[in-house]
Amino acid sequence: MARVVVDVMLKPEILDPQGQAVQRALPRLGFDGVVDVRQGKRFELELAGPVDDTVLDRVREMARTFLANTVIEDFDVRVEEVS
Amino acid sequence: MARVVVDVMLKPEILDPQGQAVQRALPRLGFDGVVDVRQGKRFELELAGPVDDTVLDRVREMARTFLANTVIEDFDVRVEEVS
Repeated sequence: MARVVVDVMLKPEILDPQGQAVQRALPRLGFDGVVDVRQGKRFELELAGPVDDTVLDRVREMARTFLANTVIEDFDVRVEEVS
Repeated sequence: MARVVVDVMLKPEILDPQGQAVQRALPRLGFDGVVDVRQGKRFELELAGPVDDTVLDRVREMARTFLANTVIEDFDVRVEEVS
């Protein structure tokens, strides 16, 4: 089994109201020094077989067509664990 | 500036309906071999100063008290970038 992680974040130029809400709340909770907060999604995919370039390309295709809205989001795919 | 990432995922024993919905949809979209899908949140925090152990402890405190619901979620804190 292998775990592949797909991180999906809003593109830098896109306004992130959730991240802004978190950032505005932090000083009220006593946490200073945080200049910016961006919030996105993290997918952990457990794959049955070994992970090779072909499999990673399929996961990128999954991200491009389904996990991310590539009009407003960027995604990153990486292998995190192989057992 | 430094970027610290906080990943927040449901604890393994907690049912993940969002992850299950993604997993059930994948074969219909032509993606096989995905045994399990877990969906969580990713926070990217831009910090003003350098990141030392004290700062990382503060970020862990932020995660424990605000970014994650530690009754049902686990979190992981790591430094991703220092510029």
